[in-house]
Amino acid sequence: MGSILQATVEKIGPVSADWRRKAREHLDNLAIPRGSLGDLLDLAEQLAAIRESLKPSVRSKAVVTMAADHGVVEDGVSAFPQEVTLQMVANFVAGGAAINVLAEVAGARVVVVDMGVGADLDRSFAEKILSCKVDYGTRNIARGPAMSREQAVKSLETGIEIAGRLVKEGVELLATGDMGIGNTTPSSAILAVISGRSVREVTGRGTGIDDDALQNKIRVIENALNVNKPDAGDPVDVLAKVGGFEIGGIAGLILGAACHKIPVVVDGFISTAGALLAKKLAPASLDYMISGHCSLEYGHRLMLEELGLKPLLELNLRLGEGTGAALAMNIVEAAAQVINKMLTFEDAGVRRNSGGAGHETVSVSRS
Amino acid sequence: MGSILQATVEKIGPVSADWRRKAREHLDNLAIPRGSLGDLLDLAEQLAAIRESLKPSVRSKAVVTMAADHGVVEDGVSAFPQEVTLQMVANFVAGGAAINVLAEVAGARVVVVDMGVGADLDRSFAEKILSCKVDYGTRNIARGPAMSREQAVKSLETGIEIAGRLVKEGVELLATGDMGIGNTTPSSAILAVISGRSVREVTGRGTGIDDDALQNKIRVIENALNVNKPDAGDPVDVLAKVGGFEIGGIAGLILGAACHKIPVVVDGFISTAGALLAKKLAPASLDYMISGHCSLEYGHRLMLEELGLKPLLELNLRLGEGTGAALAMNIVEAAAQVINKMLTFEDAGVRRNSGGAGHETVSVSRS
Repeated sequence: MGSILQATVEKIGPVSADWRRKAREHLDNLAIPRGSLGDLLDLAEQLAAIRESLKPSVRSKAVVTMAADHGVVEDGVSAFPQEVTLQMVANFVAGGAAINVLAEVAGARVVVVDMGVGADLDRSFAEKILSCKVDYGTRNIARGPAMSREQAVKSLETGIEIAGRLVKEGVELLATGDMGIGNTTPSSAILAVISGRSVREVTGRGTGIDDDALQNKIRVIENALNVNKPDAGDPVDVLAKVGGFEIGGIAGLILGAACHKIPVVVDGFISTAGALLAKKLAPASLDYMISGHCSLEYGHRLMLEELGLKPLLELNLRLGEGTGAALAMNIVEAAAQVINKMLTFEDAGVRRNSGGAGHETVSVSRS
Repeated sequence: MGSILQATVEKIGPVSADWRRKAREHLDNLAIPRGSLGDLLDLAEQLAAIRESLKPSVRSKAVVTMAADHGVVEDGVSAFPQEVTLQMVANFVAGGAAINVLAEVAGARVVVVDMGVGADLDRSFAEKILSCKVDYGTRNIARGPAMSREQAVKSLETGIEIAGRLVKEGVELLATGDMGIGNTTPSSAILAVISGRSVREVTGRGTGIDDDALQNKIRVIENALNVNKPDAGDPVDVLAKVGGFEIGGIAGLILGAACHKIPVVVDGFISTAGALLAKKLAPASLDYMISGHCSLEYGHRLMLEELGLKPLLELNLRLGEGTGAALAMNIVEAAAQVINKMLTFEDAGVRRNSGGAGHETVSVSRS
């Protein structure tokens, strides 16, 4: 394990139970029937506990979209050709992709990272993306390891460093995103290894392959596990053998967020593969994760079960890029504002119901 | 039926099938795997068809929160005393309620309407709310009709007029909201009448009553239906006999939105009771409705089934005020921006997959 990774993992602790309790007490006193804001209250409690404040701010937001290529596409696992990864990075830079549009609605900046796109990017992109290429795409996992152990550590540490840099720049809420033709294949492989489920159970249609291609994809992933024999107890080994550079970067970003006590909204299937690795590396990192949405890609539900996370949205998305996480950022902002700004029964001069904390019959007249 | 109501209902037609088709064609060409933005695409199509434009704008937003009291609270159907309606209106004016906070996150203004609060409001509120009091609360529906037929028409027409006024002011997206201690009782009654389901099946705990109070509430609603015998085929009769002033106002607001071809986000249980009445009055008004969320109040799911609407959010909310609708407004904004701003395959120079419309092998180089 690299020294940065080691130090980060050691620094990640669970969120404060004390702040959780303080937050819940405050939320229970808001001038609403107790609990009637449902999941927003749980989220507000989580934010307060992460930030150790009853006034948590998530105003400054960034979606980090990590791009990389996958050698396994040569085995026909995707409906799209590999060059689309590069083309979509160009689309992110041009501002016309879904993630640009949805991040703008969320008031978030988009940080595009080349973690390992299989070609050199146009030089004009250099100012607009972070160039952190670990390699020109992974090798074909059906034949051998995706990357070396050193490259796996480097991809994790790159994510950690990007989180650190953004936190230093004032970012208070992170979201993960991915772009990489073929990357549902390594994500399914990671899920199979970590959950112990069969490949058939965890493998879906990605961007939309047909029945024959799905059977082929399942065989490819089974081969990848047979050839590589990843060690489920060693997440760096899993990443190196059947992962991807952007998946490592996402796992690292989550670890970096947890280390800096910043909430991180996890996007769909590929991002949650990263979250599975992050949790294996540092179980307490789970406390800092918010699941943005549940993807239509079937295995995503299994990943969320594995992590015990409840997604904020279910909108039948299956795009990636960070789109589901970006959409959910407004819900996170809403939860933060609920604890920041809502008045309590006492503040508002509203009578509690009989099930409340007593006999506060505050006058209706207001100061 | 009043003349304004009559004219409005007659003016409401279904959205343009032609614009639906044009919108879907455009959305199918966006540089994403076809359909991968899931429900956002359906919503974008709906917005385009409502606005008859491939660039629908929902930037200017208003949540209309209608407040009224209910004579039936004297029968112990709510966990809160009646004066809380007035106190919460004061809280809305002070800006410290959930709806203020969530509307701000959505970039929406809050329009508070006194449709029939059971007391005179503080004069200092006059500038900050719309005073449209039909009466000082309804009469007890367990003993007789909630209101006269004329009052029912007036509450509907008030909602219609408010929608018209806001549209004239430039509002492009409306949301409904309610405040009224006891108002899950008339809402359950309306659902029972319109759906033909048993009172027991459609009645829930509202703001949090216990088992005994729930049994009492069911008896009260059964009495209301026996005493009043509302005519399911005549929504004005249903409203007059077992409804509420804010429920009529909400139904009218929805009709007004549909008449002016403006999308309207419908909040939870009480708002959707209004939507049931609106759809009965003008079936095509359904085309303009967006369900913001599914409430924890059990009957809400039944209402949405009745209407055939799929809620955008499921966050276990059960508050009303318009909170679920306000939270969903950002999703609506996101859908509008998807159709407004995203690039197509051709625009973005991205290759389609083999399942796409042909052999576009657009160059990766960008102009």
